[in-house]
Parts: sequence; C-alpha cells; structure tokens
Amino acid sequence: MAGVQTSALCIAVSNAGGLGSLPCAMLSADTLRAELQTIQAGTSNPYNVNFFCHTPPEPDIARNQKWQQALSPYYRELGLNPDEFPSGPGRTPFSADLAEVLEEFKPPFVSFHFGLPKPELLQRVKAMGAQILSSATTVEEALWLQANGCDFVIAQGLEAGGHRGHFLSHDLSVQMGTFALLPQVVKALDIPVIATGGIANANGVAAAMALGAKAVQVGTAYLLAPECTTSVIHRKALASPKAQHTALTNLFSGRPARGIVNRVMREMGSLSDCPPEFPLATAGIAPLRAKAESLGLGDFTPLWAGQNAGECLEASATEITHRLAQGF
Amino acid sequence: MAGVQTSALCIAVSNAGGLGSLPCAMLSADTLRAELQTIQAGTSNPYNVNFFCHTPPEPDIARNQKWQQALSPYYRELGLNPDEFPSGPGRTPFSADLAEVLEEFKPPFVSFHFGLPKPELLQRVKAMGAQILSSATTVEEALWLQANGCDFVIAQGLEAGGHRGHFLSHDLSVQMGTFALLPQVVKALDIPVIATGGIANANGVAAAMALGAKAVQVGTAYLLAPECTTSVIHRKALASPKAQHTALTNLFSGRPARGIVNRVMREMGSLSDCPPEFPLATAGIAPLRAKAESLGLGDFTPLWAGQNAGECLEASATEITHRLAQGF
Repeated sequence: MAGVQTSALCIAVSNAGGLGSLPCAMLSADTLRAELQTIQAGTSNPYNVNFFCHTPPEPDIARNQKWQQALSPYYRELGLNPDEFPSGPGRTPFSADLAEVLEEFKPPFVSFHFGLPKPELLQRVKAMGAQILSSATTVEEALWLQANGCDFVIAQGLEAGGHRGHFLSHDLSVQMGTFALLPQVVKALDIPVIATGGIANANGVAAAMALGAKAVQVGTAYLLAPECTTSVIHRKALASPKAQHTALTNLFSGRPARGIVNRVMREMGSLSDCPPEFPLATAGIAPLRAKAESLGLGDFTPLWAGQNAGECLEASATEITHRLAQGF
Repeated sequence: MAGVQTSALCIAVSNAGGLGSLPCAMLSADTLRAELQTIQAGTSNPYNVNFFCHTPPEPDIARNQKWQQALSPYYRELGLNPDEFPSGPGRTPFSADLAEVLEEFKPPFVSFHFGLPKPELLQRVKAMGAQILSSATTVEEALWLQANGCDFVIAQGLEAGGHRGHFLSHDLSVQMGTFALLPQVVKALDIPVIATGGIANANGVAAAMALGAKAVQVGTAYLLAPECTTSVIHRKALASPKAQHTALTNLFSGRPARGIVNRVMREMGSLSDCPPEFPLATAGIAPLRAKAESLGLGDFTPLWAGQNAGECLEASATEITHRLAQGF
C-alpha cells in the first residue's frame, strides 16, 4: 500500500480492532521515525510495519536506454524532453538504518515482501520481539518462509492488487488463484496462514476462513476510505467500471503488480521486456505520470487494485474494518 | 471432462446425490444415444449432458502448414513421417442431429461451453423441458448468458482445469480467479450461480457457498476415481508433484485450457501462436500423443487438471461426492 496510505489508515484500522499496517517501502529513516511516533501516539493496539526486501540491482545502461527509447514518444507527446530521462531506484529495501529506527519503537509485527532480509538483519528484527510475516505466491515459497524464520505466512493469491511477492521463481505460470494457493499453503505449513487476494468483504473473509486461513490481509477494499491518501485519479478509476479490468504489469516498477488497465498498459502491453529491473523502471516513467496527472489523466499512473476492486466502499476505515469482521 | 469419463461417472455421481454429467463434445449421435440409454438404465436421478457450441472455423491451409512445421521435429524424433500430417476437427459442436437424439431422452439438464448454440437450436432444447447451463469467465459473459436463456450460470474461475469457456473476449487478462469472479457474478445476476475452479474438497465447497454459489461444479477431483477413464499416464501425473504446476495452453486444441505442464508445453511455450484455430490443432498433435503414449510418455498428452489437482482422491465417485457434500 506504499503511496496510497500513511500512518492514518494504520491507526484507524488498529483502533477498529484490525491489525493496521504501515507501508515503508518508500519511506526514509526520518519519515519512518515520524510515522512510528504518530502511530504510537494514535493507538495502543498492535500494528504492523511492512518493508520490501529485494536486492537492489546494478544499474544497467543498455536496459535503461531501451526503456528511454520505449517511452520517448510519450515524453514528446506530453511536451517533455526525452533526453532528460531520470534513473535511480524507486523503492528502498529494508536496511540496517531502518532496523535502527525500528529498535526505538519495537513494533509488534514486521512484514516483508519479496522474501526475507538477510539472516543477520532478520535476527535483529526478531530480537526486538517482533512477529515476522512475509508473502508466498507458491507452496515452495511458503515452505521456504516457514523454514527461514517466519511466524506467519501470507498466501497471496493471483487476485491480489499491487506487487506480486514472488521471490523464488519469476515464472508467473506457477502462481495460483486464492482458491488453490490458500488451502495448499495451509496444508503444507505448521504455522498460521493469512489469506490475501480478492478478499474485499465479509463473504470473502468467511470463504478464506473456510479454506483454512487464520486471518486475512485486505488492501484494495480500503482505497476509497478517507484515511487513505489515494489520489483523485486513482479513486475515480476505482469507482468506475474500468476497475473490473485489472492486469499484472511490470511497466511501473519493473516487477509484476496488479493494477487497473490504463493507456500505457494497453499500448505497451502490460508485461513488457522494455522496463529495466525492479525497482529501476520507476524513475523513467515518473515524469510522464506527473505530467499526465497534472492534466487530470491516469494514463501513466499505477492504479493498483485487486480483482475485486468493485467492492471498494466510500466509507471510513473503521466501518470497512467492522464490516469485514462480520465474516469471522 | 470429454476424454476422461463416460456414462459410468455420470451415473455414479447422480446416484450419490450429485448431478452427474456426460461430456458429449467428442461423441457421435449413435454413441450419444447409447450413453443416454445407459444413463437412464443406471439412475433415476437427474443428470446433465454437456456440449461444446463453438462455430467450426474454416480450415486455414497456411496456419495448418505452420503447425505442421512447428511439430515436424517432434514427428521425426518419434519416427513419424511429418508429411503425413492429419488435419480436421477434433471436437464437434452441438447440432440438430444431436438435438434429435436428446429429444428421445429429454435430459433434465443440458450445459454448454463457449456460450450457447444458435437461438433456434437452444429453443429446441428448452422445448424438451431441459434446464440450461453455461459457463462464464467474466461478468459480461454471465450477463449475456442470463439475457440469452440460461437458467443457471457456471462462474468458471481461472483455477479450473480443461478448456476456458470464454466466448465474448479472447483476452485472457480479463479472466479472474474464483475468489473474484464468483462474488461478482453472484452480485450481477438474478439467476443461481454455480461455482467452478479450484473446488476440490468440502472446504472448497463451503468457501464457494460463502461467496454466494448455489452449487459447485467439480471435475479434477474425480480424475483418479475408478469410474473415470483417465489414462494411466494422466493418473500418474495427477498423483505426482508435477500436478502442482499447471498452465493454460492452446497446444492441444487451439484454445486455452489448463493442464499439467509437460514437455511440449515447456518447449513450445504453453500459449503459442503456432496452433491453428480451435479445434483444428487437435489432429496434428494426435499422432505424437499416440506414439509417445505407446512409449509410456505423456509429453504430448493434454494432462487436463485444475490448480488443486493435489486434492484428487483415489476413491470411488460415491465417496468423493459424499465428501464434497460435507461442505454444503
């Protein structure tokens, strides 16, 4: 949920009886500290902090040029100079610096995406007393996470919005819908499994419990809540019939993530070999996104959403949480 | 389930309290008549007959040559003559001839795949008193089926084994997992919805009911039952760890269908632009399948299976049906 929420949603959900979460993939150490202060002032209930833990790739000049070339026509169309093509990482992985901030706050739950951080870094988080969570997109990944120190595994079905969490295989064909992945992970593991992917209302929660989940992770269903920082463009797309058609795309970051199909996805193909490796694709498309958004267009905006985006409620996070809880 | 079951499974399931079904996509009028006689002698409970209702394509010489070229190396490897490359349809759509046979038996339920037959033919089936079912892979298709005479719609999630039932759009990215498709179809329709895709045990049934299904359609879970005609090669694959990796492939018929990944899928790519239009791809790959199978290999066999193939039980159809029923 990086980019669409801050501590406000985390606090509201934790106060409503859920486990609120703070996405930290795009936060500096200083912002993380400020956000954690806000959370601890705002709720006395448990909360979670979420980090990406990818290995930053070496910049690849040839691939960045390919990306520049592919986006140049759009740069020109929007009156931008394609020779001024930014590069650099779009998201930061979990690090010793961030762990140092966590040590000040000792968050009760810490979740990771794309596997787990290096053993010594993970050990440092466990030493704070935090329960560790991470996402699995296959049974193999779930077993790996259990063997490598997770206390809970999040089974991420293909319906889920945002970045796929895969880390052992990049072959998308091995990934499964929630209806298949969830019971298989439950059967394979000894530790509790959290379901995610297409769970957007109380019926979805009840179905996930029937398939063996001990808890659910819900993202998309909160995107229209006032506590989210979802942009007006993103909100409009979510509330429109366009939200019925999502697809996995690597155009916005370099890794497959599910969002509402928009112009750049239609024209370049959602899964393309043009973008450089995650997260290096982000920088080059950012100026297009900013310029288009200034014109009121979401043509280059990642409109992250799961396959049940139509269930988003324009309601407070408290009400959304209470409604979901009826499925337990 | 064409190719892996006959009237025997249909009778066993209907006698166990389910709605048994006879797949008719590969049956002649005479075989259909014989099978229906067997069913009516074997059960007094309701049963279903299932037909494909595609529009047969014009043979396309250029595309068939492309297919021949693509498969030639395999022909040579297996000692077959690539110049003796068969063509012709692999499956027959529902027709007036088959409707005539149905009129002798008046089956209580008739289901279709790939939409519905032409209005006059459909009307003829409805005039027999049959309830009409067909599969939807999107909300749009579900609404179309409701508007065009279906009494029940089968919401086919992406987890399902065998042929995808899409008929309004060939864009696979619009298709959804059961967790998303099912509740959306339930919400959009006034008629009852049957869930399919990844439902392989009582928990799956309970989850589908929680998402609003009035019934479930189960295929893969029966494939190891003695009443199925599943080949030894297919059974071995289903019972092995290979069953964890299924993919959609158009190599066996020309249309995307889910099966366990095997050699030809790995080597040619599961979704390829080589095969001619459905069902014309079937003929050319058939000799490879036959030869490989005679050597004990499933390299060219469609190993149809859903994403929960690991739940297949080596048990009687009666026991499988009773176990599933515990989820209601």
